[in-house]
Amino acid sequence: MLLYIYLIAITAEAMSGALAAGRRNMDLFGVSLIAFLTALGGGTVRDVMLGNFPIGWTQHPPYIYLTISAGLTTILLARIMHHLHRFFLLLDAMGLIAFTIIGCNVAQGLDYSLPIVVMSGITTGIFGGILRDVLCNRTPQVLRHELYASVSLLVALLYLLLRDLGISENINMLASFVVGLSIRLAAIRWHWSLPVFSYSPERWRS
Amino acid sequence: MLLYIYLIAITAEAMSGALAAGRRNMDLFGVSLIAFLTALGGGTVRDVMLGNFPIGWTQHPPYIYLTISAGLTTILLARIMHHLHRFFLLLDAMGLIAFTIIGCNVAQGLDYSLPIVVMSGITTGIFGGILRDVLCNRTPQVLRHELYASVSLLVALLYLLLRDLGISENINMLASFVVGLSIRLAAIRWHWSLPVFSYSPERWRS
Amino acid sequence: MLLYIYLIAITAEAMSGALAAGRRNMDLFGVSLIAFLTALGGGTVRDVMLGNFPIGWTQHPPYIYLTISAGLTTILLARIMHHLHRFFLLLDAMGLIAFTIIGCNVAQGLDYSLPIVVMSGITTGIFGGILRDVLCNRTPQVLRHELYASVSLLVALLYLLLRDLGISENINMLASFVVGLSIRLAAIRWHWSLPVFSYSPERWRS
Repeated sequence: MLLYIYLIAITAEAMSGALAAGRRNMDLFGVSLIAFLTALGGGTVRDVMLGNFPIGWTQHPPYIYLTISAGLTTILLARIMHHLHRFFLLLDAMGLIAFTIIGCNVAQGLDYSLPIVVMSGITTGIFGGILRDVLCNRTPQVLRHELYASVSLLVALLYLLLRDLGISENINMLASFVVGLSIRLAAIRWHWSLPVFSYSPERWRS
Repeated sequence: MLLYIYLIAITAEAMSGALAAGRRNMDLFGVSLIAFLTALGGGTVRDVMLGNFPIGWTQHPPYIYLTISAGLTTILLARIMHHLHRFFLLLDAMGLIAFTIIGCNVAQGLDYSLPIVVMSGITTGIFGGILRDVLCNRTPQVLRHELYASVSLLVALLYLLLRDLGISENINMLASFVVGLSIRLAAIRWHWSLPVFSYSPERWRS
Repeated sequence: MLLYIYLIAITAEAMSGALAAGRRNMDLFGVSLIAFLTALGGGTVRDVMLGNFPIGWTQHPPYIYLTISAGLTTILLARIMHHLHRFFLLLDAMGLIAFTIIGCNVAQGLDYSLPIVVMSGITTGIFGGILRDVLCNRTPQVLRHELYASVSLLVALLYLLLRDLGISENINMLASFVVGLSIRLAAIRWHWSLPVFSYSPERWRS
């Protein structure tokens, strides 16, 4: 079940990467690379951070093909993409939650302590988008808009709490998705966001 | 002793990260992430470069809490931050030197050769600031202003030379701090900098 | 033979890094760092991606000195650099091919599967340039101009195919260089490029 959601998630992330590449007028190779990195970059950063080699996708080439195909297909769909906007945000939110749960599980399997397990979940959830934005030369969006990274944090905490309480894995995942999706979609609907820190000094340098 | 300076250093670096995030109008999560990465990113890049797993901070969660707290506290202090400007530059300089010495020691403990030991020191010293600037979408400051990275290089060389000469660790660290701080603060005071390479071709591409 | 081409390649890449640093008015330290990362960053990203520690250049300090020297020498040559433009593109193309072949061999030596071997070749070929552009705060050039990353992909496929067919290593490398250089130089001469995906939505966010 989580695997299916994961496949949907990396597809959705790859498409968001392709669109960002398109805004920078990248060629087909650039679109493929950004799609791949947006989808699988979060897990890559997580595996490097945890010293978890070989890195996940290197053992599953089909994930590579899937993300690159999704990226290239996005080019064909570009004109109708804005009609799919809401559907897309839903897929993206599902992906965020799936990535977070997977990231927690990977770190826990390696016996890392709780704070690192949480950070592993969040890293898996948001770093694909951060890599996408760094490579497309823009300030990371996930750190500025409606609740996104915070949803990842919340889902990680909830998931680990329920597991600790002995809740069965299936019910736990269901709860994580219901709560995570609700908050994320409500945040989009009513523009919930964390307070923003705006700093514009005259004299501060460095 | 070096531990205390290290704690001061990651606090100061986290605060500089938070201010950079504030200039990009990031939310609380973004401020926390940039604060964390500015403070602990240099050591992370060093550990990955040296294949030194598990990465340092994953074994010391309190460092994570400290840097995130420092980042969030910075928001409250933002208005008075420019009054603390000089004090801050002092802390930052101490951090640069502490990071450099720690980085040298980590690589030496892994039996890397001298040039890699020096690069490990510099990487620990400056890569937090480089990650901060890349994520905040600006050209890395540490490579453009008053002597900064060069101070890290100099401290690394001095520290390793004195150790080779059999000077006791305490005196060696004292000497590294005195020389490093003097040069860095003098560089700030009198605007010492390395020559700059300005290249603006008409015809060169790539 | 491949070693000599490799040395020429990292020299050429270091010089291209130095010029990019010069456009951002970096100081001597920045020029050295960007030169180093442009030349050896592709191999570094590859080794981290493959979990191949210790990272190549940490065992060969002369490569570090060579790339930094090449970077600093570029400053002296800056005025005549545009006269060398064509020669430089040739060196850069040779470097791309050498990097690609080396990258394939490293992954194959670690028993990775074919798709990862190809990705290892491309990563070695293009990621130095990507790191250079990210640190110099511009959109990666290799993903936007005349066939470049695609040449790396093609060379990787050809090289692995010929090896599979039992062609001797020397002839295989010769073929890879002849085909790779021809395509790359033809692409520069006649402005061959992959189709570009340009996406400029009104309503799409993230």
